Amino acid sequence: MSAVTEAIRNGVDAEKMFATLDLIKAQPELARFQFRVRNHWIGGAHNRSTIKDFYAAGGEDTTRSEAFAIDAGEPAILLGTDTGPNPAEYLLHALAACLTTSIVYVAAARKVRLEWVESTITGDMDVRGCLGVDEEPRNGFERIGVSFRISGDASDEKLREVVERAKARSAVYDMVTNGVPVAVDVAVG
Amino acid sequence: MSAVTEAIRNGVDAEKMFATLDLIKAQPELARFQFRVRNHWIGGAHNRSTIKDFYAAGGEDTTRSEAFAIDAGEPAILLGTDTGPNPAEYLLHALAACLTTSIVYVAAARKVRLEWVESTITGDMDVRGCLGVDEEPRNGFERIGVSFRISGDASDEKLREVVERAKARSAVYDMVTNGVPVAVDVAVG
Repeated sequence: MSAVTEAIRNGVDAEKMFATLDLIKAQPELARFQFRVRNHWIGGAHNRSTIKDFYAAGGEDTTRSEAFAIDAGEPAILLGTDTGPNPAEYLLHALAACLTTSIVYVAAARKVRLEWVESTITGDMDVRGCLGVDEEPRNGFERIGVSFRISGDASDEKLREVVERAKARSAVYDMVTNGVPVAVDVAVG
Repeated sequence: MSAVTEAIRNGVDAEKMFATLDLIKAQPELARFQFRVRNHWIGGAHNRSTIKDFYAAGGEDTTRSEAFAIDAGEPAILLGTDTGPNPAEYLLHALAACLTTSIVYVAAARKVRLEWVESTITGDMDVRGCLGVDEEPRNGFERIGVSFRISGDASDEKLREVVERAKARSAVYDMVTNGVPVAVDVAVG
């Protein structure tokens, strides 16, 4: 196997990854990132976010030529017309995606070639909270369950260590388990 | 204006909304919902969630004929090939979408006809945390900022009250600000 293919593990360029880590260690100011989403209401439970620009590594990143557009909705039972996954489902997706990418990157760094990573994420909710019917249930999920199935060219123990390390480093896992300060401001008219 | 069109405000059937609230008040066991996401890794930072079935109001909801498929990725600077918004951007989208839908539903309940709702959401992160370069910065966003612009046929004060009530009822705002217990299990092989 050539040195080039050796450096690409799980679709991740491990050499570039280590070079990026070294660069950020040497210049911590490059670690400041800002991600942004713009959302507009279309009608009822239908709204759309566009996602393109972000700040990274000392400047505006201009590598995205087009914006991603993603639509949210609600199913009929929650008074929508199913124009997209609902916001709580998008939160579960964000968590699944972040843990999965973290697993893939950690495995690449640890020279583990993965064959398969899949997960099922569930969120349990008493909708009396968000519907304002009762003060007692919280608005969001009471609990989230994540079940991973993973295989690769390493021992079971090493694969489990990869998942543990991914949990310890995942941005969205941190946010969903610990919360984030959110400031909301409103311009009217 | 007919009674039928009067009942539809902001694309939301307000009569059906109040009927749903009355039903859940009378039978709280119908308020148990479970949402689910299935995710599989495609390669590198590219993974895909499929979202279809959920449990609601005493049984499996079967109104969705097809699954939603949503792709996550990372931009080049985070070692991906930009196959979709990244997981942290999806979390911002989930928050924007939930607050927006909450605003629209609260306004419908309070007889406010909205003309416009848009928002910009930003999340600031020191990526040394999630990259494992430094133990000090957290993995996720340090803070999230949400800026709404809203207009409708009500006073500024009433429109601001609608946003406040939406914050107080939004499922994703609750989860992102307060956190949720997450249990992860792993099957290897």
